[in-house]
Amino acid sequence: MPLAFQSVKGSAWILSVGNELLIGRVVNTNAAWLAQRLTLLGYAVRRIVVVPDVEEEIAGAFRDALGSADVVVSTGGLGPTPDDVTNFALAKALGRPAEVNAEALRMVEEKYARRGYPMTPEREKMAVMPRGARPLPNPVGTAPGILVEEGSKIVVCLPGVPSEMEAIFLEHVEPLLRSRGPPHFYAERVVRVKGVPESDVAPVVKKALKLSELVYVKSHPRGFEVDAPVLEIHVYGGSEKPGEAESEVERVAAFVAEEIRRSFPEKAQVELR
Amino acid sequence: MPLAFQSVKGSAWILSVGNELLIGRVVNTNAAWLAQRLTLLGYAVRRIVVVPDVEEEIAGAFRDALGSADVVVSTGGLGPTPDDVTNFALAKALGRPAEVNAEALRMVEEKYARRGYPMTPEREKMAVMPRGARPLPNPVGTAPGILVEEGSKIVVCLPGVPSEMEAIFLEHVEPLLRSRGPPHFYAERVVRVKGVPESDVAPVVKKALKLSELVYVKSHPRGFEVDAPVLEIHVYGGSEKPGEAESEVERVAAFVAEEIRRSFPEKAQVELR
Repeated sequence: MPLAFQSVKGSAWILSVGNELLIGRVVNTNAAWLAQRLTLLGYAVRRIVVVPDVEEEIAGAFRDALGSADVVVSTGGLGPTPDDVTNFALAKALGRPAEVNAEALRMVEEKYARRGYPMTPEREKMAVMPRGARPLPNPVGTAPGILVEEGSKIVVCLPGVPSEMEAIFLEHVEPLLRSRGPPHFYAERVVRVKGVPESDVAPVVKKALKLSELVYVKSHPRGFEVDAPVLEIHVYGGSEKPGEAESEVERVAAFVAEEIRRSFPEKAQVELR
Repeated sequence: MPLAFQSVKGSAWILSVGNELLIGRVVNTNAAWLAQRLTLLGYAVRRIVVVPDVEEEIAGAFRDALGSADVVVSTGGLGPTPDDVTNFALAKALGRPAEVNAEALRMVEEKYARRGYPMTPEREKMAVMPRGARPLPNPVGTAPGILVEEGSKIVVCLPGVPSEMEAIFLEHVEPLLRSRGPPHFYAERVVRVKGVPESDVAPVVKKALKLSELVYVKSHPRGFEVDAPVLEIHVYGGSEKPGEAESEVERVAAFVAEEIRRSFPEKAQVELR
């Protein structure tokens, strides 16, 4: 496999916590959003794992993730209800005590004080974090995010509400992840092909995958293989050198387009986007 | 935790295969769709795992899934391109040889013959399955699904194209899963609450979770916790007895609505859906 799917920055796992995902009530748009941000930042996302609201299972997933990835980002389970237990699960996985974080408590208190709400055990729970964690201010909601550095690894816990998750990631996580390791430049092109079945394009994709260590190529069927084939061939890659990913992706995408035109001169309609 | 999230039929894992999910180019709607179908059928989905198009990693995920779940459903990686390797990965995980399945080969040949396309190695690859597998006809596309029974466990591999995945599941997988184990009846209600923060409703949810072994209760914030709180409290459960899940869910949802109205008489607007 080309190296494109490895990474200049390291590997990442995304953990999504919540029964609502496992009963199909909610589509996991959070994971897709995070996967895209992490990819653009230069991290290779190797797993997305969805787990139920069960402390022992979340802890097990954190252990698996920390055993394999450089960066672990979780969403969900930071709120005030009894099944919000991501903070306790992470503490267990790290072997650290879960305790009220003074800075986090101040953040939570301030949010509620603004409208005259007193503190309650449920609100205080949102300030419980593994010892040594750094709370990440939540500009949209009340539960702070959690950042823990464990050796060279980073764990970030974000709320499940998309607007809160995105705001904390963009303000506090992205700058940190960007600053680690070398710079990263990402590029992509799409070759759209009408009139040729994916099974006939497969040999071209196979050749294209060997052209550059930086570039990955994958075909996505959008029409009907036999009767009305339409393909989107996604060509993408990253590099730490400015311009390199762009020129390599350009070169591979041009090869794919040209090779398909050449192989199927009468059938293929090829468009390079 | 209440038993609602366990199950009368057994547990299930969903494996989603595809780099496009790990770079965030595609949102995993397949997993949500399958999770909902499996839940309605009476299976408890305990994990959704997204893995890259790498044979060894897919095989590892199948092994993990088979070590824990009664039913494993995968999507993606059944097509004709070189990175479609789910069939080989499953064979490896099961310790069975991967070989051309004669019935599957007939299905694939027929699809292409209809438009006069000859067989090619790429097309033949879609008929490769673990020894002993049953091919599942694909009414929409060309790659058959794969069904393997391993002891009392069932593994199903479906294509990643949503229309193909759904068609094969509904026609060939759902009837089989429905027929296993006792019947299953699912029920759900939503209590919508305006004006009370989730952290104040949390003690009610905690009490509600203890009311029935069959029923699970989870609050989902939809507004702004401090300034304009809106909650949807999802109450759901399943049973093998007709009417039982419905009446238990009804009882718990009525308790939640009533308890919130009683606790916050001046603030709460409560609607039972």
